[in-house]
Amino acid sequence: MNKLLDQLNQLLGDNGLLLGQSLRDHPASALIQPAALIRPNSTEQLSAALRLCYDADQAVVPQGGRTGMVSGQLANAQEIVVSLERMTKIEQLDTSARTMTVEAGIALQTVQEAAEQSDLMFPLDLGARGSATIGGNIATNAGGNRVVRFGMTREMVLGLEAVLADGTIISSMSSVLKNNTGYDLKQLFIGSEGTLGIVTRAVLRLRPKPRSQNTALLAASSFPQLIALLGEADAALGGSMSSFEVMWNNFYQHVTDGGDRHRQPLADHYPYYVIVESMGADQTTDNIRFNRCMESLLESELIEDAVIAQSQKERESIWEIRDDVESLLSLYPFSTYDISVPLAFMEDYVDDIQAKLTQKWPQSRCIVFGHLGDGNIHLIVAMGSDSSDAHHQVDTIIYNALRHRNGIISAEHGIGLEKKAHLNVSRSSAEISLMRTLKQALDPKNILNPQKVI
Amino acid sequence: MNKLLDQLNQLLGDNGLLLGQSLRDHPASALIQPAALIRPNSTEQLSAALRLCYDADQAVVPQGGRTGMVSGQLANAQEIVVSLERMTKIEQLDTSARTMTVEAGIALQTVQEAAEQSDLMFPLDLGARGSATIGGNIATNAGGNRVVRFGMTREMVLGLEAVLADGTIISSMSSVLKNNTGYDLKQLFIGSEGTLGIVTRAVLRLRPKPRSQNTALLAASSFPQLIALLGEADAALGGSMSSFEVMWNNFYQHVTDGGDRHRQPLADHYPYYVIVESMGADQTTDNIRFNRCMESLLESELIEDAVIAQSQKERESIWEIRDDVESLLSLYPFSTYDISVPLAFMEDYVDDIQAKLTQKWPQSRCIVFGHLGDGNIHLIVAMGSDSSDAHHQVDTIIYNALRHRNGIISAEHGIGLEKKAHLNVSRSSAEISLMRTLKQALDPKNILNPQKVI
Repeated sequence: MNKLLDQLNQLLGDNGLLLGQSLRDHPASALIQPAALIRPNSTEQLSAALRLCYDADQAVVPQGGRTGMVSGQLANAQEIVVSLERMTKIEQLDTSARTMTVEAGIALQTVQEAAEQSDLMFPLDLGARGSATIGGNIATNAGGNRVVRFGMTREMVLGLEAVLADGTIISSMSSVLKNNTGYDLKQLFIGSEGTLGIVTRAVLRLRPKPRSQNTALLAASSFPQLIALLGEADAALGGSMSSFEVMWNNFYQHVTDGGDRHRQPLADHYPYYVIVESMGADQTTDNIRFNRCMESLLESELIEDAVIAQSQKERESIWEIRDDVESLLSLYPFSTYDISVPLAFMEDYVDDIQAKLTQKWPQSRCIVFGHLGDGNIHLIVAMGSDSSDAHHQVDTIIYNALRHRNGIISAEHGIGLEKKAHLNVSRSSAEISLMRTLKQALDPKNILNPQKVI
Repeated sequence: MNKLLDQLNQLLGDNGLLLGQSLRDHPASALIQPAALIRPNSTEQLSAALRLCYDADQAVVPQGGRTGMVSGQLANAQEIVVSLERMTKIEQLDTSARTMTVEAGIALQTVQEAAEQSDLMFPLDLGARGSATIGGNIATNAGGNRVVRFGMTREMVLGLEAVLADGTIISSMSSVLKNNTGYDLKQLFIGSEGTLGIVTRAVLRLRPKPRSQNTALLAASSFPQLIALLGEADAALGGSMSSFEVMWNNFYQHVTDGGDRHRQPLADHYPYYVIVESMGADQTTDNIRFNRCMESLLESELIEDAVIAQSQKERESIWEIRDDVESLLSLYPFSTYDISVPLAFMEDYVDDIQAKLTQKWPQSRCIVFGHLGDGNIHLIVAMGSDSSDAHHQVDTIIYNALRHRNGIISAEHGIGLEKKAHLNVSRSSAEISLMRTLKQALDPKNILNPQKVI
């Protein structure tokens, strides 16, 4: 290790290789202090550093903004952490092609703001926008609140550059929408959580900045109603629907009842609450269309009640209910889940796990909310016990009930270390074996983010 | 070979293995008669057949509707062709989740029509819809006229099942939008032209059926105007713009001048003609928005003239101009190209190649049109000579001029056999080497569509 650290120091300098006190002070050491931290200032420097690590059989763990939810970024004391925190440039913002070329260490929010200043939009958005990096977003194929319209991160990356375990640079910096010249190599690095390569640069697809926004909070009385509502709203808003978020009754009640954090825009006895948002082009005509759509949903009895935001402040107060994760902290201890279930099975799935949880822990609570437009819900399960055995038993209940419903154990967060044991719920042994084949082909020494995902 | 054919016959029966006269009569023998044709009736049967071929080191070539443009489906006399023409079922159409599960041999048009009957839409569309199969569309990552809104085939596939060279079945039939459980294996089989696996089934994402449509033909006087027009139309139509097709002056003149095939909706002296189409939700309000958008484009001088279709018949007559490939046949002999160029370089690129072509062949013509909204144009180059040497020289001019402009030699059609020699224009040696690594990992004996792509 000492010889390798000397070589890395020679290559990267004191600013590029952190050890000792400067490493102890770095956020990368928050949980466990790794053996070293390397901070390359270019793809070429990372390539040279990885080649040294490769020759020394040294494991490396790439970290973005360290906001991942499944310990995919966790390094142990024997591993070297790679951070692209010195690679944060916007290399090009092409307003005609509507693309932005960036280094992967840039924060999501910086990308969003730069796009906005050019009357464009980078549609990916999530709570950790200030610290999450584009490289991390790509490595985890991040989702968020607008997937129903704009897709996951995968759909927003036109090209990328990555460094393989042995230092080989794969530069696939295509900047066009259509490229059928052989295998689409960038797909290997999107969502593979840094196990196949480290993303260093990317060409991002931008969209026109929306010129209008409409938001409503709706109440629905049954799950079949919700499904019909989703189909009708999507069709009636003609391509402009950008969010379809659902809160189960217990989420809405927990967040809005008691205390003065939120005023209740709708009474709290409905089984489901939905936030529908559209992003369009002309506020005047879009208001007409949106209001007409809401009226017709009421008339056709797909919804029970509705509040349409009349101002930016009202829009924000609706979203604040959905985003109030903080008020859920009072339920601690709990386990959180991020699953997908085909809509046809979702109601039955939630009933099933709630019954099983109540049977085992009569005082337990299972709060449900999420991106229903994508088939993705989040679960907060508070079972009144923080033992690892209890967490394990909840995991088993939540995941086993997905098996025969074609459910997905991780819609957005990924596998990392934390869900590895359950990967076989959503993936067959043939699939996992093919993943291993890929890992073996691209990283035969298993030095890139080892132990993660598979 | 005889032993293998006996084994295949035992496995598949006379209906599943075509030889002799029945093979000669089959469209698969149109150009070259292959050694045999296998027509499995299930994924399991294909798996067993491929295992036999694998054990016998026998090369196999998958064919869909045989409508590919780059000879990716071409088999020689020593190869066995695989056709899924007996696997054409719709297994499930889930109107709540808006997904369709199909066998890969089904024709694109059948999928489109089934979706439409359920008030939904499968947005992929292309001229060969009647014969092209979903399996072929997936294997070639097909594009078409609506990519600017709905993406390529890649964006429309939620899950798929494929058989590897050795017969291993990879079933990744996820039916949800979000699935971050390990590597996204389906991406390996989308766009890899049957060289990594044979797609047997798929879960397709459907969209709401549009309830309104607006179409206009516009005239623009400069390329910078075109670029601004694209940005403005996309923003002003608020997510509903589904096509942005451009015809250069020489295309418009050739198709509409002389003869009575088409009436000229606009005078023929403008440098560029654009078809803008939107698909929305409500014809009344969408008419207002669309017409207002066109007025504002005229007022801001982004366009010189416009014709807005007032009826289905007028819409069709506009599209008939764009789709009149037949009238181009009078230019024969010619070479055709399907390239992407970043918009910032596109005008310069077209000027450059036209100058080079005219210099070499003063009588040559280079007709330009295509999906400008995607950065993808088609070129028809008639140089007055059909010698393979002339074709080769044109290839060199067209492709070499892409090199320093970050251009793409195949936006939609793929590489197959025909563009293999030019792959290095758009892909680095590190990329091609990584493609070979993947091929070697998944098909170590090189029996799946050998010689294609790389």
